[in-house]
Amino acid sequence: MLTDADHAAEFLTSSRTPGSAETPAPDDFLEKRTASYSYNVEEVPLDSLPNWRLGDRLTHASGRFFSIEGMAIRTDFGPTAEWCQPIIVQPEIGILGIIVRRIHGVRHFLMQAKMEPGNSDLVQYAATVQATPSNYQRVHGGRPTPYLDYFLNNAGRRIVFDQLLSEHASWYLHKRNRNMIIEIPETEDIAVGDDFTWLTLGQLRRQLIRGSRVNMNARTVLSGVSYATNEDPDSYGDLPDEFGRQVAESHRAGRSEADVSAAMTWLIDRKAEFSLRVRPIDLVDLDGWVYGTDCIRHRENRYFRIVGLSVSAASREVGTWSQPMLEPAGRHVVALICQRRSGVLQFLVQAAIQPGLTDRMELAPTVQLTSEPENRPPLAEYLEAPESWIRLNASQSEDGGRFLRADTTHVVIEVPEDHAVEAPDNYRWMTLGLLNRLIRSGYYVNVEARSLLACLL
Amino acid sequence: MLTDADHAAEFLTSSRTPGSAETPAPDDFLEKRTASYSYNVEEVPLDSLPNWRLGDRLTHASGRFFSIEGMAIRTDFGPTAEWCQPIIVQPEIGILGIIVRRIHGVRHFLMQAKMEPGNSDLVQYAATVQATPSNYQRVHGGRPTPYLDYFLNNAGRRIVFDQLLSEHASWYLHKRNRNMIIEIPETEDIAVGDDFTWLTLGQLRRQLIRGSRVNMNARTVLSGVSYATNEDPDSYGDLPDEFGRQVAESHRAGRSEADVSAAMTWLIDRKAEFSLRVRPIDLVDLDGWVYGTDCIRHRENRYFRIVGLSVSAASREVGTWSQPMLEPAGRHVVALICQRRSGVLQFLVQAAIQPGLTDRMELAPTVQLTSEPENRPPLAEYLEAPESWIRLNASQSEDGGRFLRADTTHVVIEVPEDHAVEAPDNYRWMTLGLLNRLIRSGYYVNVEARSLLACLL
Repeated sequence: MLTDADHAAEFLTSSRTPGSAETPAPDDFLEKRTASYSYNVEEVPLDSLPNWRLGDRLTHASGRFFSIEGMAIRTDFGPTAEWCQPIIVQPEIGILGIIVRRIHGVRHFLMQAKMEPGNSDLVQYAATVQATPSNYQRVHGGRPTPYLDYFLNNAGRRIVFDQLLSEHASWYLHKRNRNMIIEIPETEDIAVGDDFTWLTLGQLRRQLIRGSRVNMNARTVLSGVSYATNEDPDSYGDLPDEFGRQVAESHRAGRSEADVSAAMTWLIDRKAEFSLRVRPIDLVDLDGWVYGTDCIRHRENRYFRIVGLSVSAASREVGTWSQPMLEPAGRHVVALICQRRSGVLQFLVQAAIQPGLTDRMELAPTVQLTSEPENRPPLAEYLEAPESWIRLNASQSEDGGRFLRADTTHVVIEVPEDHAVEAPDNYRWMTLGLLNRLIRSGYYVNVEARSLLACLL
Repeated sequence: MLTDADHAAEFLTSSRTPGSAETPAPDDFLEKRTASYSYNVEEVPLDSLPNWRLGDRLTHASGRFFSIEGMAIRTDFGPTAEWCQPIIVQPEIGILGIIVRRIHGVRHFLMQAKMEPGNSDLVQYAATVQATPSNYQRVHGGRPTPYLDYFLNNAGRRIVFDQLLSEHASWYLHKRNRNMIIEIPETEDIAVGDDFTWLTLGQLRRQLIRGSRVNMNARTVLSGVSYATNEDPDSYGDLPDEFGRQVAESHRAGRSEADVSAAMTWLIDRKAEFSLRVRPIDLVDLDGWVYGTDCIRHRENRYFRIVGLSVSAASREVGTWSQPMLEPAGRHVVALICQRRSGVLQFLVQAAIQPGLTDRMELAPTVQLTSEPENRPPLAEYLEAPESWIRLNASQSEDGGRFLRADTTHVVIEVPEDHAVEAPDNYRWMTLGLLNRLIRSGYYVNVEARSLLACLL
């Protein structure tokens, strides 16, 4: 059986393999699949959605899928002490799973070109499987989910990564998905469907850097990838640029039991410091919100709207469907500041309360900026850093199955070694090795931070 | 800095030190402290509790401490699909902390003789510190909490164990406490107050086996103790009996990364299988419950009552106080079945849904038996096992600060190696080493199981 270090070596080699005969042109593949789709996405009134009932809550007639409910929130974290909002409630555990396999000695990822109605670029690379129990138990009578069996409970499953991780906790209540990477042997036959193709991590990185081409669910699974090899990272594959070297070294650093314990103790100190209370209330009673039959929106059109969407598409589980979607009012920005500290690249994360987190607080990016004027968080001034400090600047889509035109700018900023960053007490420098260990321990790193970490692979 | 294995060696030596000049007679110490207390505990009507308000919820005028609220629960786990109940809501994170220190070469635990109004044996050994923020921020103007500073955030804290762990999840909603063990150097002076004394783990084990002498909060902290030494466990201290040897060996087994990952994957499979929905409702609307001004009780006097208690005591943070308490309707039993499997002692745990768990499901003892006739869970027949199989049979108190006369019989049953135990799919054999690693990872082992594990030290 492979150890974690063996897996890391395989991943690092794949990351340093920029091309593959399996998919000579990943851009073309995505474009061809996009062209092969015919779809129509149209906003419709909430109360016209077939099988959805708009009352105290917005629910599906089957009682499955998800619901939109009202919440009253009180916290002493952040600039706003009390507010009301609608939130998506989906207690089911979805599977987000990628199959990997060695091809000609290099690990490849089986990626799916997938249309999601909310994405600005409609078709993006998705995980091999992205399915909720409602999907794969075919509550709405759709087609079976390809490759699902590889991820369901059976003794033959070869698991590289498997963890329940949180989803977007400003918009989802206690939502978590199962993030999995499964390996199949080189010798095992597996049919590759039209929408599927094999990519190396090096190819995926190029797609990630260009933005809006690797969907949210694929990014959160990829955040489980570790490069913590036993040997010198430069002995794996093509030599990367200097920042790439530092990333690989950072994966190997700060990941001992003592490092993990110290980080957990620090996070528990923060959890004890701040409080959060989330209380369900009826949608009609949401202070500051307009409850309409067409949509649910903030009185001043801030934050987000809940709208109806009608979708016709040939290539999803069912050809045509309607559903509620959450559309944010403006563009969000997430940013990670990093710095070489004591010779190792470290990332500044904050312990942050979000209303939908299962245990209230997780590690978040250095900056999470919404379009709200009252939200000017600490260190937001680094978003105007000199061009030479910027290591990543890419737009990425949030989950296009629930969120409409939700594009988040992802930024990674490397500040010079001699630059002093002044951060509040709930911020801490961590190596990629430590962050990866925390991701593998459960609800410790939020989806915004994981999405950024995936872009650093 | 000591490694985890070093700490384990220290704990194992302490466990095999049956006596200490620090506290030659632990029984006498407890009896003397008991005799020095004067207290009076009296049931009073709920609506007569000063500063408590009985409405849709039962709350304290300060908004602090805790509240009693109504919950409607739906689950496909267990014999009952839907029910309503009152539940204790206390979002604060309390500190349960024990100071340890080497004395004459053996680690001792600084234990407190503490009166809790709900305990049948009123004064028991408690952790060094047992305090909620409401206590130690002195909301009700009490005395300062002794030794608290050792556990608060400061750079000099020497942490042996530190984790947020769940509390009794049938009675508490999402309650978790911070369980800590802190070590101070042999050379450091520390004044020992009248209610405090130093005990070895060997002395504590004797108190645990006798029952009702080590309180719930001390037991959950002690469940963090590991005996996973690097060297042969028999080289530490006095040789124990055969079962004691097997316990120490089981602490060293099954605790690799691969073992932990496999157990987590198994638990995630179970989490995906079962659902739980908990919805707050007003106390007056609880179906099947009688909402009285004197108490809140089930129509058929089943499950538990919420009652008022008036307490006068000289030695708690405040001399006299009143509070609501939860009084269970009957005696509960928790049992762990263990067996030598492939030469190593393993324990049969179940993945169980409980309404108050933060992530819905944790590992529970083999049997959790309440006095309800519909609750005859799988494997309950082992409670009638032959005397020769019984390794522990002791009554222990639940948290006497919230629960009144809540005594739970703790049983450990070792079945012979050639005996086949037939268990449902949500049961799994685990070593003590694996269970300890899961306890140290967060919300994986419930308080009933941890309480049993503490009795096995």
